[in-house]
Amino acid sequence: MTKVVTFGEILMRMSPPNNLMYDQASSFDVTYGGGEFNVAASLVNYGIEADFITILPQNPIAECAINTIKNYGVGYKNILRKGNRIGIYFLENGIANRNSKVVYDRTNSSISQIKKGDIDWKLVFKDADWFHWSGITPALSKTAAEVCLEATETASKMGLTISTDLNYRSKLWNYGKHPKELIPKLLAYSNVILSDIDTARFMLGLEKIYPDYANDILIKENFEQLKKMLPNARTIAMTVRNCISASHYKIGGLLYKDNTLYRAKKHDVNPVLDRVGSGDAFMAGLLYGLVKFPDNLQKVVSFATGTCVLKHSIFGDINRVTKEEVLNFINTNGSAKVDR
Amino acid sequence: MTKVVTFGEILMRMSPPNNLMYDQASSFDVTYGGGEFNVAASLVNYGIEADFITILPQNPIAECAINTIKNYGVGYKNILRKGNRIGIYFLENGIANRNSKVVYDRTNSSISQIKKGDIDWKLVFKDADWFHWSGITPALSKTAAEVCLEATETASKMGLTISTDLNYRSKLWNYGKHPKELIPKLLAYSNVILSDIDTARFMLGLEKIYPDYANDILIKENFEQLKKMLPNARTIAMTVRNCISASHYKIGGLLYKDNTLYRAKKHDVNPVLDRVGSGDAFMAGLLYGLVKFPDNLQKVVSFATGTCVLKHSIFGDINRVTKEEVLNFINTNGSAKVDR
Amino acid sequence: MTKVVTFGEILMRMSPPNNLMYDQASSFDVTYGGGEFNVAASLVNYGIEADFITILPQNPIAECAINTIKNYGVGYKNILRKGNRIGIYFLENGIANRNSKVVYDRTNSSISQIKKGDIDWKLVFKDADWFHWSGITPALSKTAAEVCLEATETASKMGLTISTDLNYRSKLWNYGKHPKELIPKLLAYSNVILSDIDTARFMLGLEKIYPDYANDILIKENFEQLKKMLPNARTIAMTVRNCISASHYKIGGLLYKDNTLYRAKKHDVNPVLDRVGSGDAFMAGLLYGLVKFPDNLQKVVSFATGTCVLKHSIFGDINRVTKEEVLNFINTNGSAKVDR
Amino acid sequence: MTKVVTFGEILMRMSPPNNLMYDQASSFDVTYGGGEFNVAASLVNYGIEADFITILPQNPIAECAINTIKNYGVGYKNILRKGNRIGIYFLENGIANRNSKVVYDRTNSSISQIKKGDIDWKLVFKDADWFHWSGITPALSKTAAEVCLEATETASKMGLTISTDLNYRSKLWNYGKHPKELIPKLLAYSNVILSDIDTARFMLGLEKIYPDYANDILIKENFEQLKKMLPNARTIAMTVRNCISASHYKIGGLLYKDNTLYRAKKHDVNPVLDRVGSGDAFMAGLLYGLVKFPDNLQKVVSFATGTCVLKHSIFGDINRVTKEEVLNFINTNGSAKVDR
Amino acid sequence: MTKVVTFGEILMRMSPPNNLMYDQASSFDVTYGGGEFNVAASLVNYGIEADFITILPQNPIAECAINTIKNYGVGYKNILRKGNRIGIYFLENGIANRNSKVVYDRTNSSISQIKKGDIDWKLVFKDADWFHWSGITPALSKTAAEVCLEATETASKMGLTISTDLNYRSKLWNYGKHPKELIPKLLAYSNVILSDIDTARFMLGLEKIYPDYANDILIKENFEQLKKMLPNARTIAMTVRNCISASHYKIGGLLYKDNTLYRAKKHDVNPVLDRVGSGDAFMAGLLYGLVKFPDNLQKVVSFATGTCVLKHSIFGDINRVTKEEVLNFINTNGSAKVDR
Amino acid sequence: MTKVVTFGEILMRMSPPNNLMYDQASSFDVTYGGGEFNVAASLVNYGIEADFITILPQNPIAECAINTIKNYGVGYKNILRKGNRIGIYFLENGIANRNSKVVYDRTNSSISQIKKGDIDWKLVFKDADWFHWSGITPALSKTAAEVCLEATETASKMGLTISTDLNYRSKLWNYGKHPKELIPKLLAYSNVILSDIDTARFMLGLEKIYPDYANDILIKENFEQLKKMLPNARTIAMTVRNCISASHYKIGGLLYKDNTLYRAKKHDVNPVLDRVGSGDAFMAGLLYGLVKFPDNLQKVVSFATGTCVLKHSIFGDINRVTKEEVLNFINTNGSAKVDR
Repeated sequence: MTKVVTFGEILMRMSPPNNLMYDQASSFDVTYGGGEFNVAASLVNYGIEADFITILPQNPIAECAINTIKNYGVGYKNILRKGNRIGIYFLENGIANRNSKVVYDRTNSSISQIKKGDIDWKLVFKDADWFHWSGITPALSKTAAEVCLEATETASKMGLTISTDLNYRSKLWNYGKHPKELIPKLLAYSNVILSDIDTARFMLGLEKIYPDYANDILIKENFEQLKKMLPNARTIAMTVRNCISASHYKIGGLLYKDNTLYRAKKHDVNPVLDRVGSGDAFMAGLLYGLVKFPDNLQKVVSFATGTCVLKHSIFGDINRVTKEEVLNFINTNGSAKVDR
Repeated sequence: MTKVVTFGEILMRMSPPNNLMYDQASSFDVTYGGGEFNVAASLVNYGIEADFITILPQNPIAECAINTIKNYGVGYKNILRKGNRIGIYFLENGIANRNSKVVYDRTNSSISQIKKGDIDWKLVFKDADWFHWSGITPALSKTAAEVCLEATETASKMGLTISTDLNYRSKLWNYGKHPKELIPKLLAYSNVILSDIDTARFMLGLEKIYPDYANDILIKENFEQLKKMLPNARTIAMTVRNCISASHYKIGGLLYKDNTLYRAKKHDVNPVLDRVGSGDAFMAGLLYGLVKFPDNLQKVVSFATGTCVLKHSIFGDINRVTKEEVLNFINTNGSAKVDR
Repeated sequence: MTKVVTFGEILMRMSPPNNLMYDQASSFDVTYGGGEFNVAASLVNYGIEADFITILPQNPIAECAINTIKNYGVGYKNILRKGNRIGIYFLENGIANRNSKVVYDRTNSSISQIKKGDIDWKLVFKDADWFHWSGITPALSKTAAEVCLEATETASKMGLTISTDLNYRSKLWNYGKHPKELIPKLLAYSNVILSDIDTARFMLGLEKIYPDYANDILIKENFEQLKKMLPNARTIAMTVRNCISASHYKIGGLLYKDNTLYRAKKHDVNPVLDRVGSGDAFMAGLLYGLVKFPDNLQKVVSFATGTCVLKHSIFGDINRVTKEEVLNFINTNGSAKVDR
Repeated sequence: MTKVVTFGEILMRMSPPNNLMYDQASSFDVTYGGGEFNVAASLVNYGIEADFITILPQNPIAECAINTIKNYGVGYKNILRKGNRIGIYFLENGIANRNSKVVYDRTNSSISQIKKGDIDWKLVFKDADWFHWSGITPALSKTAAEVCLEATETASKMGLTISTDLNYRSKLWNYGKHPKELIPKLLAYSNVILSDIDTARFMLGLEKIYPDYANDILIKENFEQLKKMLPNARTIAMTVRNCISASHYKIGGLLYKDNTLYRAKKHDVNPVLDRVGSGDAFMAGLLYGLVKFPDNLQKVVSFATGTCVLKHSIFGDINRVTKEEVLNFINTNGSAKVDR
Repeated sequence: MTKVVTFGEILMRMSPPNNLMYDQASSFDVTYGGGEFNVAASLVNYGIEADFITILPQNPIAECAINTIKNYGVGYKNILRKGNRIGIYFLENGIANRNSKVVYDRTNSSISQIKKGDIDWKLVFKDADWFHWSGITPALSKTAAEVCLEATETASKMGLTISTDLNYRSKLWNYGKHPKELIPKLLAYSNVILSDIDTARFMLGLEKIYPDYANDILIKENFEQLKKMLPNARTIAMTVRNCISASHYKIGGLLYKDNTLYRAKKHDVNPVLDRVGSGDAFMAGLLYGLVKFPDNLQKVVSFATGTCVLKHSIFGDINRVTKEEVLNFINTNGSAKVDR
Repeated sequence: MTKVVTFGEILMRMSPPNNLMYDQASSFDVTYGGGEFNVAASLVNYGIEADFITILPQNPIAECAINTIKNYGVGYKNILRKGNRIGIYFLENGIANRNSKVVYDRTNSSISQIKKGDIDWKLVFKDADWFHWSGITPALSKTAAEVCLEATETASKMGLTISTDLNYRSKLWNYGKHPKELIPKLLAYSNVILSDIDTARFMLGLEKIYPDYANDILIKENFEQLKKMLPNARTIAMTVRNCISASHYKIGGLLYKDNTLYRAKKHDVNPVLDRVGSGDAFMAGLLYGLVKFPDNLQKVVSFATGTCVLKHSIFGDINRVTKEEVLNFINTNGSAKVDR
């Protein structure tokens, strides 16, 4: 039985209902989520034990976040309670030709003020097999980046598999460093890497760009270039997202291992109910696949992509479909019958 | 003036709002509907008198169902009030690549405990010209199947036209019989049959299957095969539904009479607001057409298909568009202007 | 700095939520809007000063309309308060194959009872550069048509640019005149004309019709014909709307000036969140473009069309996107990324 | 079996939800009601047949009102469909120390433009035993007052019992007459009169006023004075309402017949969920009592008062409690147990 | 550390929002609760470990109930998954003078079909110190009553403290037995009994009745009489509820042990937000007090009563206030300041 | 004509709807308010010009706050746009015996990082007659306290009347100073002081306490003691609030000037719809009264108290009743009739 630990920030998410703009809404829908927690919740949903590590303040709003973690069955015992505030983000959901807008209000959140030594990583990783973190956390603050390094070093020493979702957020990374200065160093320990093409380009300086999804040669060149920069990365995956409009995406996925490229079918997603967390869903699907059917990498990338596709039809940050539903989706290519 | 009697179950329907999943919703939208009632309500809406026969318990929730029947102008005077409970079904509305999910909670509903003799069919059919029932009712219980036979025999003797929608529900039919043992016997009296291709295959053992909507020869072979099994069926119709996703269907319709095949234009339905009851809408459109313009069978199948298409844009089980709107839709092919 | 004055009716708009039909809703969403006010609000949003002239009664509901005007930053100081009632319209939002339905309840609204002399146009137009009115106002009543003439004559004398949106509403125009008797006379002063092809045909008797958007020669013939009828119209624009369904439009735009035709790219709008006011958004975009970049008429028509397209994604009558968002949309052709 | 006919206006009612003020609400709750219709609906609820006479326009909003009438089981076959509009009223629900506010938008409603001869009263009153009208209708317009007289004269000739609720609305009565000029003449035919003390004072010029509910002598003097002015009034009743705040009332009732005064217990109503229609509920309770237990006038006034009290706990204009619930309430003095 | 096991039914609860009546609501609020689960959830909230034993079917609606149990931190590992359906109850919330109405739809629920041997009570009670059940469970079915006996016998043998809330529901108990035939036998093992006065009278045949809360002598006679019938009952408690209206209660509590009567202050509860589960809250408070401060019985009854009072201000079946809030409430007598 | 300037923080307020607890709500109602802004908005509502000074960041959420300020007609031109974030507070509305809970999330808000020199007070106070600030602002940060001093010194020099609401918030004041060290120094310039008794005791060290509202002598001693500490305070007022429960208050008001005590009638407020901002409403009423009828101090205190009472019936932070409604309330003592 695999046990996964994920580390990062869980935020309060506020969004105007019914595709209203911020200033039109007299109430905001409230949920809680965050990249690394979303991965943990999705894994528990698939039957894999997962623990989430973060710092949250002592107040009733943070309590709501704790309850969300509990409700998804994710381990919360090692969460620290201190500091000023829980991070918040506002999400104005776009529709048709109007894009979504995110406003972050994460400054001075408890987790951004984390310091080395705050978390007892040896205790955290006891009994764990896998550690997952993402590029969001080192963007929060200098000390958060330091703790990422502390965590990966410990995890590596203790023999855990380490996975990372690059997850670039341009509105964070404000403390004076370009990701390129930090990220490659932090990724040195990572065995599984997830990115999308723009993030890889920006955070790692990837040079090539594949012009279309069908061109195997160019795509492989990209992956080979990435592979060279990431010595321990045995598996590299990419989400591919074509945005026809804010309501219509085409979603595909790529996986590269041992010089072989695996490619999932591209799916239409129309309409998009909620796009936040779809990358985290992919990550969880990837991780689940690598644990459960590591010898069938085509199935792994199809499963991860299927999870990602289905996440777009679920309100909130977190994938809630079962693994059976994903398998059924990729097997039947999603027949839309009412089951009755 | 035609008077139609329909017989079956009316259920409470509960569904999470805004495409939420069951566990995400803190309230459920409540409506009332059921295949045979939906047909009656749609007919009254089109100006044809209709009575609905069922059994409902004596409690305030069943009272809400009675009020729904009243509000649609459907005759309710012959409804029996006894037994334990009204059937319930839960509907999780799918969207994009996530399918809808139905949970039935119909066990021991008042109507499932119906027995021969409970309904005075001679009284019920007095002044009536048409009797409609569906394949859902004999699936409820052995005694319900017996009452279907009792009703059809009486209706037949009294000279009523009998129509049947096969309407297969895999989650019912739990009492030890396969539909094939019962359904052909029950259908012996039916003059008008509605089915979709999968139901016909399953409930009647139809062997051929038409590979595409445009292939007249194969389609006709199917209908001829059906015709042989159903001695009294003068008119056989089929709904054709391609599910691109849970939000996008293509809807067509076929009608077969006197060895002639009539085919309605296929329409895109996107997005699907509510797909439940669209087959019942087709049935009502078919019945209306056969009564009002029996000599124009092309118009009949177009009208039935148009009703079915438009139903997908209406919340709840029941078609609420006027006949003028359907005619306008099939004539103009649905120009989407705001009328102002 | 340009100051625009618009004149017309602001109405209370009531619409069933969630695409319900009128009779299914137990609450109606309430907003306030009206063609000429919508133009003013959109212009203020783009940074151009605008005043709105109307008549509203003295009651708390009219107060809500006044507050809407205030909240959009539109000048309201010259609004008269008298008469019986604010006009109301009900809007049932269509979806997929079911069309929207508008019910007007504007009879005897305060503005419809306006009389010559009620408004001190000289005062109103002091410091103003531009006067905008639409074909809705003369449809309200004979006296309203007279005041339109009074206003345009004064504006013309005072040297203002005059723009008109023909905006035909078949459900108004009930007081015994066909628009053709009045409209050409009223348009004699207009320098900028907006219409769609059907309106132009009906209200002006346009004879030619362009069969497709790509046929330059026929389109130009139409514009030339229009030009002949409208001696002062230096700029004529048209919105082009293909309605695939109530949820899916294709929107384009044409501008004709100095014998040259400018054409904006056609955009898919899917789904349509709210189509009311999209013509007013085009008008405001056109006006903004003519004021801010009069020498780049291609950009003007693209900007107007982009405004119109984006309006379809905003609840309520009024365009709320910024000019930067429109420019970004027409430059990037609407990439649908979440900005975070 | 008694059959009652009531005549008046049914209006669309719009009110901000959750005790918001008009300008704070982005949606309004929609219901339909009107004094005389409310009486009819309440009577049908109690098992007495009732018909409602009014005029409504031909549009989908009026259709919603028709459906409301249908849904309550009230006869609607003699309703005329013509004219411009359905009357509307807006209701801002007060709470605690903030009072409710009503805005009428009834001008030019279809019913206000009624003329003598529009209704075939002989047909309407065929099979009827009782005619009920209220002081609201003659306030609508001069012609509406004339039709009231026409109706009462016909009803009187045809031997119907006539009841009237004085129901003064200061915001109506704008067409140049003081009620005192009209009302006594109209009341000449009425056998049952309902009023509250302020209305009686204003519309009939009642001079005495009872200083407290317990003072029999003064109260009786009031009734005797009334009696003298109303030659045919065999039964006179009064609702007594003490408003502690917008959320807390004390409700009592008085009935005077054959020189005897009957007085119902005063009840606390706290909180008031919806006070509109509580007088109509009293009227219906009074009428029901006079028909069903005319010899027990103490029970009649208690039943009417109980209906009135319970109406305050029901959303919308219309009393929906059963007669059994009213009887249980007056017998047990309202024990507030959950029945389970 | 104490561990409590409770056994019973968890139901889906559906109630119209905003004090609407059943037939007025187009959506129902959905929560999950049930007497014995409510006690367990409240105990976990107070920091005492608790397990809940029940039977639920395998379907997505039952999954929602399981999630509720999980979310409250109550142990759910020993819950059986089989049978047809989860029990449902409908709750129409009364207000002011209109009472609440409950409709049960529990027939054939999975738990009602429980049989001896279904639950491995020895496993369930391993590590447990306390077993709690209520009078609702034996009312469900004959076999459920048998399992109650099976459970209490095992618990008793294994040395657990047993508590019982008599909890009479007149709408259950339909299988042919009067509670008096069963209940005393089942109570023989109970050490802690909770009842209200009416239930004690009905289910045990209590003869005396205390006429007022202040009369010590009569109250004690009641308790002594009870004590004689219940040989193992060391602690007997009573909730006292005066219902001024559906919105206003007065709540007190009594505890009787070792011939001594303890009485909590009576509190006004106004308005009542949600009265369901307030008895269960009392029970949990009682149990908590008996475990945590057994030597201060005055504090125990005050704490139980305070919990009960505060529960009335919380939506849903389950008490969610902390023990600190209860203590603060009983110490300060509930100062209603905003803490900021 | 008086022009008032107020200075402080405007916050985003988020509160669960329908008296739900934080963790029960899936959406939060959103409004914007803050003590000093609330005073300004209330004054504009009463017809007095007012400007609000604060600092807000550049983001769409702060834009919503700006729009709120605009919508209330308060001057916003001198508001600075910089810094990280808008302050947020969460409000869980209590009911009956459960108290409200406020969670502040104001740390590092833009206004808390204000520095001397940020605001050009000479410009701000040009044309102004009155400056209002409150005890909340110096609690935000050391620099905010310094700016308060800077503002009061400038206002004083420029001859403005200065008013202060002491407004103690225990959850703020975290930067190492007790209010007593700062507040008296800051109050040296204030001419009008508002407090409640607890705040006065805490922030100024008031020794006496009046035991009941009716004891003139003790109350006057309190005021005299205050007067001695506040050399420039010509007028001192107090709000008196008895909290019967979270839903029921009794509200009174006191005013002390020239050694004379004026006392307003105490009013019951039941139920309390929204208590936030009621002190600010009192302050605005006080200020309005002192400006408009300074010679009738009894009317001043009654008006301020009436405003405060009525605010409790309005959702959101801000008083929206007109001055006519307040006058009517204090004259009629709040008759709760529907005006129709």
